[in-house]
Amino acid sequence: MKKFVIVLAAGKGTRMKSKLYKVLHQVCGKSMVEYVVEAAQAIKPDKIVTIVGNGAEEVKKVLADKSEFVLQKKQLGTGDAVLTASDELAAEKGATLVITGDTPLFTSQTFQKLFDYHQSKGNAATVLTAQAPNPYGYGRIIRDDQDNVLRIVEQKDATAAELKINEINTGVFCFDNQLLFSALKKVDNHNAQGEYYLTDVLEILRNKGQRIGAYKMPDFSESLGVNDRSALAQATKIMQKRINKKHMANGVTFIDPDTAYIDADVKIGCDTLIEGNVVIKGNTEIGDDCVVTSGSRIIDSKIANNVTVTSSTVEQAEMDDFSDVGPNSHLRPKAIIRKGAHIGNFVEIKNAEIGENSKVGHLTYVGDATLGKDVNVGCGTIFANYDGVKKDHSNVGDRAFIGSGATLVAPVNIADHAFVAADSTITKDVAKYEMAIARGRQVNKPDYWHKLPLSDDPNWK
Amino acid sequence: MKKFVIVLAAGKGTRMKSKLYKVLHQVCGKSMVEYVVEAAQAIKPDKIVTIVGNGAEEVKKVLADKSEFVLQKKQLGTGDAVLTASDELAAEKGATLVITGDTPLFTSQTFQKLFDYHQSKGNAATVLTAQAPNPYGYGRIIRDDQDNVLRIVEQKDATAAELKINEINTGVFCFDNQLLFSALKKVDNHNAQGEYYLTDVLEILRNKGQRIGAYKMPDFSESLGVNDRSALAQATKIMQKRINKKHMANGVTFIDPDTAYIDADVKIGCDTLIEGNVVIKGNTEIGDDCVVTSGSRIIDSKIANNVTVTSSTVEQAEMDDFSDVGPNSHLRPKAIIRKGAHIGNFVEIKNAEIGENSKVGHLTYVGDATLGKDVNVGCGTIFANYDGVKKDHSNVGDRAFIGSGATLVAPVNIADHAFVAADSTITKDVAKYEMAIARGRQVNKPDYWHKLPLSDDPNWK
Amino acid sequence: MKKFVIVLAAGKGTRMKSKLYKVLHQVCGKSMVEYVVEAAQAIKPDKIVTIVGNGAEEVKKVLADKSEFVLQKKQLGTGDAVLTASDELAAEKGATLVITGDTPLFTSQTFQKLFDYHQSKGNAATVLTAQAPNPYGYGRIIRDDQDNVLRIVEQKDATAAELKINEINTGVFCFDNQLLFSALKKVDNHNAQGEYYLTDVLEILRNKGQRIGAYKMPDFSESLGVNDRSALAQATKIMQKRINKKHMANGVTFIDPDTAYIDADVKIGCDTLIEGNVVIKGNTEIGDDCVVTSGSRIIDSKIANNVTVTSSTVEQAEMDDFSDVGPNSHLRPKAIIRKGAHIGNFVEIKNAEIGENSKVGHLTYVGDATLGKDVNVGCGTIFANYDGVKKDHSNVGDRAFIGSGATLVAPVNIADHAFVAADSTITKDVAKYEMAIARGRQVNKPDYWHKLPLSDDPNWK
Repeated sequence: MKKFVIVLAAGKGTRMKSKLYKVLHQVCGKSMVEYVVEAAQAIKPDKIVTIVGNGAEEVKKVLADKSEFVLQKKQLGTGDAVLTASDELAAEKGATLVITGDTPLFTSQTFQKLFDYHQSKGNAATVLTAQAPNPYGYGRIIRDDQDNVLRIVEQKDATAAELKINEINTGVFCFDNQLLFSALKKVDNHNAQGEYYLTDVLEILRNKGQRIGAYKMPDFSESLGVNDRSALAQATKIMQKRINKKHMANGVTFIDPDTAYIDADVKIGCDTLIEGNVVIKGNTEIGDDCVVTSGSRIIDSKIANNVTVTSSTVEQAEMDDFSDVGPNSHLRPKAIIRKGAHIGNFVEIKNAEIGENSKVGHLTYVGDATLGKDVNVGCGTIFANYDGVKKDHSNVGDRAFIGSGATLVAPVNIADHAFVAADSTITKDVAKYEMAIARGRQVNKPDYWHKLPLSDDPNWK
Repeated sequence: MKKFVIVLAAGKGTRMKSKLYKVLHQVCGKSMVEYVVEAAQAIKPDKIVTIVGNGAEEVKKVLADKSEFVLQKKQLGTGDAVLTASDELAAEKGATLVITGDTPLFTSQTFQKLFDYHQSKGNAATVLTAQAPNPYGYGRIIRDDQDNVLRIVEQKDATAAELKINEINTGVFCFDNQLLFSALKKVDNHNAQGEYYLTDVLEILRNKGQRIGAYKMPDFSESLGVNDRSALAQATKIMQKRINKKHMANGVTFIDPDTAYIDADVKIGCDTLIEGNVVIKGNTEIGDDCVVTSGSRIIDSKIANNVTVTSSTVEQAEMDDFSDVGPNSHLRPKAIIRKGAHIGNFVEIKNAEIGENSKVGHLTYVGDATLGKDVNVGCGTIFANYDGVKKDHSNVGDRAFIGSGATLVAPVNIADHAFVAADSTITKDVAKYEMAIARGRQVNKPDYWHKLPLSDDPNWK
Repeated sequence: MKKFVIVLAAGKGTRMKSKLYKVLHQVCGKSMVEYVVEAAQAIKPDKIVTIVGNGAEEVKKVLADKSEFVLQKKQLGTGDAVLTASDELAAEKGATLVITGDTPLFTSQTFQKLFDYHQSKGNAATVLTAQAPNPYGYGRIIRDDQDNVLRIVEQKDATAAELKINEINTGVFCFDNQLLFSALKKVDNHNAQGEYYLTDVLEILRNKGQRIGAYKMPDFSESLGVNDRSALAQATKIMQKRINKKHMANGVTFIDPDTAYIDADVKIGCDTLIEGNVVIKGNTEIGDDCVVTSGSRIIDSKIANNVTVTSSTVEQAEMDDFSDVGPNSHLRPKAIIRKGAHIGNFVEIKNAEIGENSKVGHLTYVGDATLGKDVNVGCGTIFANYDGVKKDHSNVGDRAFIGSGATLVAPVNIADHAFVAADSTITKDVAKYEMAIARGRQVNKPDYWHKLPLSDDPNWK
């Protein structure tokens, strides 16, 4: 049987109070509608059609080639939204999953089970339901004596007995595709909101003698729909637990999985320790046996094995085995830290390679430079790479020693085994075995203290 | 009917184990007793009288003109405490709310509803009660067959049947003012503690045939009283949830509202993103579309729109639209960052204005200075503002370029379009279009490496 | 009666997916098996025997002289494990507690109560049980009509009625020692796993007419066994709550005890404030009236009273009364900050003493140095302590003033009341009242701007 998926993503989401369209709000680094479409893709449907409206162009850009799109020009209700996909789907035979783009927590397993259940029962429509701990506000599922769905009763219309039912409508449905589209044409908007409701299809089909089933999913929390920022935060928390549980199953140690904020696609190796209050985002990979301490932010970076990141920010950077950074340092884009290299505290590296076992210990900026192996960069060294117009590149050879407080004015080349004296301003190349020095000579002026503003000896004349 | 409020704030709070008086302990940046008095103020009572004792002067300072004060010289019990307000209140007609100063979570809505209920029922006294999930330790409310309060039974005195009651006494009462003060005179201290209990008033009134009612508030958590640090932490957590929920309703995105520590009076605009582990304190305002990342601390500052604060500390500072700071920088008091200006990493700004679109990228201290527009401050620049006695001010004009590693010894003026060469020590003014340079000339000494301690070539002679 | 303890610590812990042996995984800075053995020690048993196997040497090293050890060469089951202790224990008379090394949350109080109960009832064996909120997966306790233990039924073997029982086996037992060892010889491995099970001893004893009792502990959470990283994180969370609750009872204020990560043996004084997201590890002591703000990491350090640590890292360092550090600074091993000294932002101190009331305000590295009292170290000062081979020590006298941007090349001595001019490179000693200066003289070159790359005046010729 062919499988189709319709994703409803046309709404604005007024209660989000946002300039951003609702389904584009992110959960753990990915927009909600992407989660929905990716979960749908995983069950390999024959077609996914996303109904777009508000923010249509932005939604299409985010989903790109993961879906086909149909534009709902006016938001006249969920029934109308599905109907706009007629051209793409109405002629098809098969089963169609209809889901909203603001439910990021549904798993592909749940979708697959819904399809399987729907097909095995030969239903005209199957409602995805769940047992709600507190069903207040949800539509309740009223079953008939054959356990099929008689109807869905909304909170405000429910009797006292019905209010006690806690099997609720998750808002996801699986339909026989052709029955869906034929029934949709009969849906009207004679209701308080003046909208065409998708759920009206259920009654139309049932009245035609069709069977409406319900598949009750075991994990209610998957069904969370996001209508405001509180729900968004709640979805983020559930997704984060899910992500971190996966990492823990893979052998990652977390001091506090509740405060390790890790995006959905991050990879982490076995026996790596992640402390609390760590942010790891985007397309980051971390190897085995690493330590990432609290206060670290790692974004789109590649961290090998046995690396230590101590309370530092690492963005679009690369750290090889046994290297370390921090606390309080900053690896910026195109920082490459080679094997065993050490980056200490208050160090910024940008578009620069630090060779094997080299050390950049303190209060240093290395920008636009290539450093060899076993280089020692003293405290307070500055690679001055900017002349006000462009950035220039400098090179430092293997085993070179850059004294503390040196300023290397780019472009400049320091050869292997070259030595730069402390506090020197280097504007010319330094050859192998050369020592470069550029600083004032020290002069001591006796008793000058007494001429200074801070002089404090009342007996001095 | 006139409304009066008595706040009991004389206790020491031994279980807090603190040198600070109990009601002055803070929850989300405000002392507990302030919350209580501010909630009382919101219902516009005719008079608020705070009973002070331990730490009287400190409590009066915190509350200032929000309340009148009466001193309870010795702490002889809650009944005695209320009685000390006789001179201020005993003659008045109306209803009097009595509340303790260690219950920061009560809302003014609850107080108002209690007054309304009290008045509508014509009670002599009305107990504010709540349904406790676990009533252990609380006084249980025993109601008579007219649903009035028969008595309040303490945990240790309760029968097995009474222990199952989970409607509990919150410790807040509304009294007919004159009945209260006349009954108080009859309260004795013939009990194990030798104290005068306010609750004895209830029995006295009932025995006189007066009606004692109970108003059951819906949210038990409001009634939390703080007697130790665990309860203080719990109150902080509940208050924090309440604060963050308000911001989320206003359109602020939180990655983790459980770890965003935001003081009660902070303002945050729509579509601003607050990551986890952020501290925002005091009188801070943040505009729309900002991003505040984890590890940031913002205190008493004014942040406009579209500002990014990355893992930085901002205190008593001001950031205009589209400016950014961080990671790991520090804006200190009177730092003013103008529109579009960029403050990078490991930068400290104090009592200084950074003009529009100027850049202070790295490892720099700007103290006591005024910078114009489009200034570039190179890495490692220091505004040396202190001569050991006083701080001096420097100025940098529009489009000036300060080379990396420069030290500007205040007071000094760098004109518009002036250039300071890298690593220069500037002690004299620099005029428009001038370049100032002050550094040693580079000398390279061939083969000097071999004379250095780190020389490592065994074949060298 | 003599008391013995057998700790089972031979397993590998496959589900941890770790190179580290299971019982060595840490919870709040201490390995799980240490918690177990320390809780056992607290009841002063006559002998503790730890059964080691996987990682035997590492486990022995961690426990050192806290236990005797017996090697189980092959892991043939818990019954076999206990039997390997025959030589040490089989001849003894008394009661023997058997516990696994992966249950870090048991308290010595619980062990003591189990022993007491066991002895008072004269049982052959006593099972430590608990009431599980959700008993799924646990062995259920089936009691006979005298309330003794009939048997323990595993989840998969239980009837529907048995599954409803939520008194569960915690896996801890107290045995009559001689009955234990005699029964162990009769345990066989005729089961699906081919293992010798300790629990089979219960049936053997009961069949011999011995009484098997059960002591139900009140706090189920103590019994958590750690088999995977999720359970490890859960144990860490429970232990952290326990630790922080203890500190709160002692008068420490926590903004968020859920995100204050404090090792088991840390000491904290009264009226100290610990913000959220703070890490305090190892052998650290913090005095009274301190403030530790979010983002701080304090490891193996000694902090006196009235000290403020603002978002800084402090490792193996010492801070005296009224000193402060931060934000974003780093005290490294052997940093000693004397009374009232101030360490500002972006400052690193290593193996150095900062004398009373001295100030090191910004962007400075002090390594291998001794500073006197009332010293002012200007912004950007570097103690250049490394010549590529060894570290040298420098000294700065009382009330000396080090100008901003100075570099002190070690070894060098700056006397009391000496002055180093801004930006000077100091390689020679400076005597009392001397001013040392070593820098280039400033030269201004008119109109040089127009020769620079960034020149932007199209009208200039």
